[in-house]
Amino acid sequence: MFRLALAQIDVTVGDLDENSKKILEYIDEAKNMKADLIAFPEMVLPGYPPEDLLFKSQFIQENLIHLEHIAGQTEDIVVVLGFIDLDSDVHNAAAVLYDGKIRDIYHKMFLPNYGVFDEDRYFKSGTKCPTYIVNGTSVGINICEDIWHSAGPTIVQRSNGAEIIVNLNGSPFDIGKRKLRKNMLRARATDNGLFVAYVNLVGGQDELVFDGGSMIVDPEGEVICASPQFKEDILFADLDVESVFRSRVRDPRVRKVRAKTLQEIGTAVEMQISEYVGQGNKPSLMKAEIHDRSEVEEIYDALVLGTKDYVRKCGFSKVLVALSGGIDSALVTAIAVDALGKENVVAVSMPSRFSSEGSKTDAALLCSNLGIDLWTLPIEEPFESFLSTLFPYFDKTEWGVAEENLQSRIRGSLVMAISNKFGWMVLTTGNKSEMATGYATIYGDMAGGYAVIKDVPKLMVYKLGHHRNTLADGEMIPKSILTKPPSAELRDDQKDEDNLPPYEILDPILKAYVEDDLSYEEIVNLGFTEEDVKRAILLVDRNEYKRRQSPPGIKITTRNFGRDRRMPIANRYKPF
Amino acid sequence: MFRLALAQIDVTVGDLDENSKKILEYIDEAKNMKADLIAFPEMVLPGYPPEDLLFKSQFIQENLIHLEHIAGQTEDIVVVLGFIDLDSDVHNAAAVLYDGKIRDIYHKMFLPNYGVFDEDRYFKSGTKCPTYIVNGTSVGINICEDIWHSAGPTIVQRSNGAEIIVNLNGSPFDIGKRKLRKNMLRARATDNGLFVAYVNLVGGQDELVFDGGSMIVDPEGEVICASPQFKEDILFADLDVESVFRSRVRDPRVRKVRAKTLQEIGTAVEMQISEYVGQGNKPSLMKAEIHDRSEVEEIYDALVLGTKDYVRKCGFSKVLVALSGGIDSALVTAIAVDALGKENVVAVSMPSRFSSEGSKTDAALLCSNLGIDLWTLPIEEPFESFLSTLFPYFDKTEWGVAEENLQSRIRGSLVMAISNKFGWMVLTTGNKSEMATGYATIYGDMAGGYAVIKDVPKLMVYKLGHHRNTLADGEMIPKSILTKPPSAELRDDQKDEDNLPPYEILDPILKAYVEDDLSYEEIVNLGFTEEDVKRAILLVDRNEYKRRQSPPGIKITTRNFGRDRRMPIANRYKPF
Repeated sequence: MFRLALAQIDVTVGDLDENSKKILEYIDEAKNMKADLIAFPEMVLPGYPPEDLLFKSQFIQENLIHLEHIAGQTEDIVVVLGFIDLDSDVHNAAAVLYDGKIRDIYHKMFLPNYGVFDEDRYFKSGTKCPTYIVNGTSVGINICEDIWHSAGPTIVQRSNGAEIIVNLNGSPFDIGKRKLRKNMLRARATDNGLFVAYVNLVGGQDELVFDGGSMIVDPEGEVICASPQFKEDILFADLDVESVFRSRVRDPRVRKVRAKTLQEIGTAVEMQISEYVGQGNKPSLMKAEIHDRSEVEEIYDALVLGTKDYVRKCGFSKVLVALSGGIDSALVTAIAVDALGKENVVAVSMPSRFSSEGSKTDAALLCSNLGIDLWTLPIEEPFESFLSTLFPYFDKTEWGVAEENLQSRIRGSLVMAISNKFGWMVLTTGNKSEMATGYATIYGDMAGGYAVIKDVPKLMVYKLGHHRNTLADGEMIPKSILTKPPSAELRDDQKDEDNLPPYEILDPILKAYVEDDLSYEEIVNLGFTEEDVKRAILLVDRNEYKRRQSPPGIKITTRNFGRDRRMPIANRYKPF
Repeated sequence: MFRLALAQIDVTVGDLDENSKKILEYIDEAKNMKADLIAFPEMVLPGYPPEDLLFKSQFIQENLIHLEHIAGQTEDIVVVLGFIDLDSDVHNAAAVLYDGKIRDIYHKMFLPNYGVFDEDRYFKSGTKCPTYIVNGTSVGINICEDIWHSAGPTIVQRSNGAEIIVNLNGSPFDIGKRKLRKNMLRARATDNGLFVAYVNLVGGQDELVFDGGSMIVDPEGEVICASPQFKEDILFADLDVESVFRSRVRDPRVRKVRAKTLQEIGTAVEMQISEYVGQGNKPSLMKAEIHDRSEVEEIYDALVLGTKDYVRKCGFSKVLVALSGGIDSALVTAIAVDALGKENVVAVSMPSRFSSEGSKTDAALLCSNLGIDLWTLPIEEPFESFLSTLFPYFDKTEWGVAEENLQSRIRGSLVMAISNKFGWMVLTTGNKSEMATGYATIYGDMAGGYAVIKDVPKLMVYKLGHHRNTLADGEMIPKSILTKPPSAELRDDQKDEDNLPPYEILDPILKAYVEDDLSYEEIVNLGFTEEDVKRAILLVDRNEYKRRQSPPGIKITTRNFGRDRRMPIANRYKPF
């Protein structure tokens, strides 16, 4: 029996003191539980991703000092954790600590350099994948991407006797990711006939939300225990290495593949930690409940955790949201309340001559349901003063986008004034369909610190609104908000559909173009009209400049507007 | 004698039609001049860097179709140009075209993935570096970064007989880069005893300005001809391959190194273009003037070209600039006039109750000197209306940053209203010292399409102002603008030095911290007070969120705020 502990914790990039403190607390807990080994996620010590902090050698040095300090607290337990190693180059690394010392260091071999990841910018690949004998059990360590490759270090470590693979992760959430991960881990476990223990970071970091969901898969491919997503957790498991693993009949074909791959990767180095690690009484395996949750549930939780962590880690405690009476701002306000508590959310209504009565009453009802303050600042007076200031130059021009956007920018200036005055962060309320098409006012409704739902398509916004209502006793987001036709209310009788195709058509076109990189023809062939596809593509392409100046927001799809999608602004490519 | 043509042209990312058209025009010119070979820069066909356009297979396919079309126009001349190749993977590639066909394709071997570059995100490295026999002369082709490596393809191509290396570049300007390049090219030419022909893109693309400056270095390390920087040019040279090169005594030690490196990189493939390419009368070598220009001259030209190209390539012709009466906005206005013509620049003065009389008269004098329109929009009325709208919530609070920033945001809203009304791009005027310290108002003076001097430290802003005046007949930027103490004029008697260390102290601290990644102690050891260093570092670290929402601007230093420096926003690292 091998008692393994996996600690999925929420750390802050750069906060070496606090991160170390938290790591030590969890080590203590694992010691009390007499675990043989506790594993922490990838880069848990410096926080992940540290981005260009990695160019500061002072930062790397301090991370090494903290690692030494943690190593000093490892009597009677083996600790595996992610940190930044520095030898002749910089490595994304895992340290193996035991009995007061750093016993060995593993360097990540497969460095992701796609999507939101830039690891080739910072790290050099490792070349060695040893196994360690801990209380008679052979353990192989590797990091994140390493385990996604069937011909990666896992197969080498297996050849060298590994019975358990401990895989440290900094894997951000996106829709469907958990299922992908689980299937991959099951394949890796059964292919190699060993236990795979997956430990993942939890918490928000700028655009990313790490969703935790650590799990252990047995050699038969069963998930035998798992931590919840989106919260800190420590998972203990007693792995019956002897009975499950050692009786397993080896398939000679598997060995053959192994040997070949071993050669390709290079010779594995074996290191033994031969000292006996203290173990107490063995309780039976503590099985965590594993239930698959719906897409909407996962997304909602990601948005709440992302908002909570961004606000907190940036040093804020309170936020304000401009409430229009529409579904986007209603949803963001509900998320903010769930993330930060109702006492830390202030809603601001800024009605204009074009605001419908319904918008105003809906906003008030929402705030009353949520139990938060609603401030009201009519924009008519500033709007009049702008029009009169501009009159000498705008006289004889037609009312148009300048006048529409002015209203939005007045609102942006008002919420920023409140932010500056009281030190509260502004949350913006634009959704992904708007970000994609540029149906938002830069320096207006786009003004703020965090764009909570910027990666959430409009149709999903509605689903999340309904989901939030199922969590509450009674109706939290008023039904009228969920059913009214979307409008920016910047001129009389304006509706989103005056400018955009209906969202039922727009959203799948946007997904096809932005997330799946389909060509114009391929999208038309999905069954959309040429006119709708052209309109959507042109809007996406023309509005890159706005997105470049947007606040960050939470990634929930496979490609967000942010680190995931890096398009030139000056770009004359015409896809049709 | 070998007649080589190097065409440094200004292309637009994604504009395959126009880029092809321009390439064909230059091919025609080279044919008329009876050149043996014409070389174009790296990625000249798709434009560079295309960033995530590279994930659109439709775009890559269309680039290949355009390449075929260009190949069809290559009777009597060998054409070498950069494009995107697709075989089993995507490559940053050079095509060798001759007599209507694509004769061979070279794949870039060394992919930069640092600074502003993300080539590992997109491309796979090449493994072959052939040489081509063109009219009896052996030519090796490689791409940009390839030639920076002494053990790169050049040495292999030399081993296989190359007499000329044609190196295609997409190398952006930064201070000192040209000197570095020249020294490297001279080393490469003399080490290998061959001609090195360096052809570079010219023009602005988002943050980057490619500065051209193509040149040919002979086997003795002399720069025998060069194109100017910052403008399109075609350089012709007759290279006396026979007399210079073939008589050269070989150093056996050089050969030894070569052989070793060849083995490391892999076997080179040789391909011959044996057909005779038509040559006319040989004029003597056309020697371009090569004069080293000052740092300030280079920077000024980079800013003008960057502004011109960004505005034009984004589809704008006219710009507006908010003129405060200070040096930053004066310099940006002068750059805009030089980039776009005085008829395409409108200045807007937006005085407040805190604007000094001098600021207003200086702004007027500058516009009169530059011959541009000055619009005046006093902000008092909107400011009053905002204060009265906010009064119910701001009553009994102290005047502070909220009220200061409001003035700046009113100005931002006014220039954006003009931009929306007339379709002119707003140029912002913040310098790098301000961007670094956050001494700028987000959605206020930071609002606009392009931040011309965002990578120019304040002390350099003054130098550039003086430089601009030396270009003009008489004083263009009034002396009072160049000599007054910097002020944001957002409250009574405000001076930058109330909030920031003097720029003579601040700028070198910022360079040490932002560009050179020095630690707190190292910066103090340069001779600054602990207080100044701490203040500067804290300001830089706290204001990442503002920079993330800044418009792009022209990179002139070795590390700009943009693609070059990727810091987390939620970041609790404390460097002291």
